Amino acid sequence: MNNNEKAIKMHEEWNGKLKITSKCSVRSREDLAIAYTPGVAEPCKAIAEDKNLAYKYTIKANTIAVVSDGSAVLGLGNIGPYAAMPVMEGKAVLFKEFGDVNAVPICLDTQDTEEIIKTVVAIAPAFGGINLEDISAPRCFEIEERLKKLLDIPVFHDDQHGTAIVVLAGAINALKVTNRTKEDCKVVVNGAGSAGIAIAKLLLSYGFQHVLLCDKEGILSENSKNLNWMQKQMLAVTNLEKKTGNLADAMVGADMFVGVSAPNIVTKEMVASMNKDSILFAMANPVPEIMPDLAKEAGAKVVATGRSDFPNQVNNVVAFPGIFKGALEGRATAITEKMKLAAAVAIAGLVPDEERNAENIMPQAFDPKVCEAVSNAVKSYIGK
Amino acid sequence: MNNNEKAIKMHEEWNGKLKITSKCSVRSREDLAIAYTPGVAEPCKAIAEDKNLAYKYTIKANTIAVVSDGSAVLGLGNIGPYAAMPVMEGKAVLFKEFGDVNAVPICLDTQDTEEIIKTVVAIAPAFGGINLEDISAPRCFEIEERLKKLLDIPVFHDDQHGTAIVVLAGAINALKVTNRTKEDCKVVVNGAGSAGIAIAKLLLSYGFQHVLLCDKEGILSENSKNLNWMQKQMLAVTNLEKKTGNLADAMVGADMFVGVSAPNIVTKEMVASMNKDSILFAMANPVPEIMPDLAKEAGAKVVATGRSDFPNQVNNVVAFPGIFKGALEGRATAITEKMKLAAAVAIAGLVPDEERNAENIMPQAFDPKVCEAVSNAVKSYIGK
Repeated sequence: MNNNEKAIKMHEEWNGKLKITSKCSVRSREDLAIAYTPGVAEPCKAIAEDKNLAYKYTIKANTIAVVSDGSAVLGLGNIGPYAAMPVMEGKAVLFKEFGDVNAVPICLDTQDTEEIIKTVVAIAPAFGGINLEDISAPRCFEIEERLKKLLDIPVFHDDQHGTAIVVLAGAINALKVTNRTKEDCKVVVNGAGSAGIAIAKLLLSYGFQHVLLCDKEGILSENSKNLNWMQKQMLAVTNLEKKTGNLADAMVGADMFVGVSAPNIVTKEMVASMNKDSILFAMANPVPEIMPDLAKEAGAKVVATGRSDFPNQVNNVVAFPGIFKGALEGRATAITEKMKLAAAVAIAGLVPDEERNAENIMPQAFDPKVCEAVSNAVKSYIGK
Repeated sequence: MNNNEKAIKMHEEWNGKLKITSKCSVRSREDLAIAYTPGVAEPCKAIAEDKNLAYKYTIKANTIAVVSDGSAVLGLGNIGPYAAMPVMEGKAVLFKEFGDVNAVPICLDTQDTEEIIKTVVAIAPAFGGINLEDISAPRCFEIEERLKKLLDIPVFHDDQHGTAIVVLAGAINALKVTNRTKEDCKVVVNGAGSAGIAIAKLLLSYGFQHVLLCDKEGILSENSKNLNWMQKQMLAVTNLEKKTGNLADAMVGADMFVGVSAPNIVTKEMVASMNKDSILFAMANPVPEIMPDLAKEAGAKVVATGRSDFPNQVNNVVAFPGIFKGALEGRATAITEKMKLAAAVAIAGLVPDEERNAENIMPQAFDPKVCEAVSNAVKSYIGK
């Protein structure tokens, strides 16, 4: 049985990958009187007096919603809320297994921006955080920004920020391995959707100075047509040299390539046109923008992909469980830019100096130290 | 430590009464490739082709939402969504412990009828059923009716129907104990909110012919002022003799009293004015409309209350877990009138003939046979 067949078989066997269980037993009338009526009236009355006590007496303390409208699921596209459920359940499984965070998958039967915002605001009281997932760009930017303003709990679009944090973590180590500085490193980000834009923003925020964004039409510039409002905004901080041209043009003389785009679109020639000892994050999945062996033949020194069967796997799972674990434990009201940067630095720091090399820039996803380090990094910036 | 103190202490210790756990382990990269990417794409694609497969591959098969706006919580009134959470979590605990149904508490930050309806429709894809809870009348009637039309999963307002099912179950046995027929039994229901109206409707649906509804102003009649639309509708099927007057007037010559109202409002004199061997469901909690000993002194034969320290406890927990267990297992698209009647008959039938007496008209809440019997009763009417 191959993995796809096994996935179908196991999903049928699981019949839903999550279960909700009780922390309290109700085996007797007295149990019932404590966990339910009449005793339950006491914590209710306390919370009615002071809303903050919800964090003391209810699951709000340690539960988030994983919210999607199914509009941009994995590589599958707009498959809608029912078909998106296995992914959101999987995400909830990872939140639990890696971060001990309770996560409820909520798939929305609407793709209208206003309705999504209203719905998330309406269901927020039960939750301590909102993880947005697989919502298509540019709607995802507006939905996240508006929800951040409307809610007093953290709102985090993982496709954007989880990916950006992990790429920055890898980039920090790749700079060291190739003796570069962030200030001088010329970066090309290919793919100007939610992940690409968030990566560009976080790299800039960390101190990178030269970032080009490309999409299918080539380098994003004043000449580009059909840019959405967020892509237009990005012109103010990327491509300051006003370059134009296609991806191949962009890569000439670049130090680092970050692909969140499509399989096999980077050629050996393009890699050869980059500066010596180049860095490639080729994260199209399962087939990367260029296979690592080809990239290396063409002169690349560090190649990272989304795949677990090559070195340097870039996997959001090293970020999001710890991000929310830290945010919930510290009762953060938002995931700030400083927290994201601190998380990336913490992830990078988990690769010890003596083990860091071209084939080892990322920590292992299954190392329990990862979540702890990210969580502590987030907590250290709460209120700052 | 008294029970109230213990309830506060335990709620702090639990820090949320529910936890969400994974049915699948993710200890290796291969695990991850089955439960999450890339394997998860297979069930996603299957559901995108056929929405019904959501019941095969996702938690929709066995998970409901417990939805409240916090507008009518227990005896506490309109305490809002945050303070309502401990009750909704408690309800979810009971769904799990009694019916093995996964239930997610969803407390809404809106009390607007249209917004509640839109929100529940929007979050429905993840769920196999919606249990509405503690929503004030008459909004609860419209919200439930509209959601039933809009959704293809069961929608059930437990304050209405759960209570009505359990009262009917008790009434069936009380008729036998007192040698009455449903056709001749004169019933007074005091309290014309969600529970009272649902009880009146279900008794009529079962075949009772004489039902009076009362509220604080007295008997609901053409002369009543300030009736809401649902109370007005009830005039077409209740009080066919066009009686007027207060509760004391209503009870003269009645056979059965059902109170979902307020403590101590029924006097011994009122009970004495009822027919011989009368039946009283005095369900105000924790202090009933009349204490059982007083009612018996005044001539009542059967007295039921909401309390566990008196005989004949009327407790919704004998109904709702089995209702949803049966509906989910049989993949019902609605909880129909026939299912509710069948559930009541099944609950009544759990008290064996030889054990049925004035002090024993209800099955024990903790008897695991109860959920099974209710679930089977519901399933037997799916598609009928």
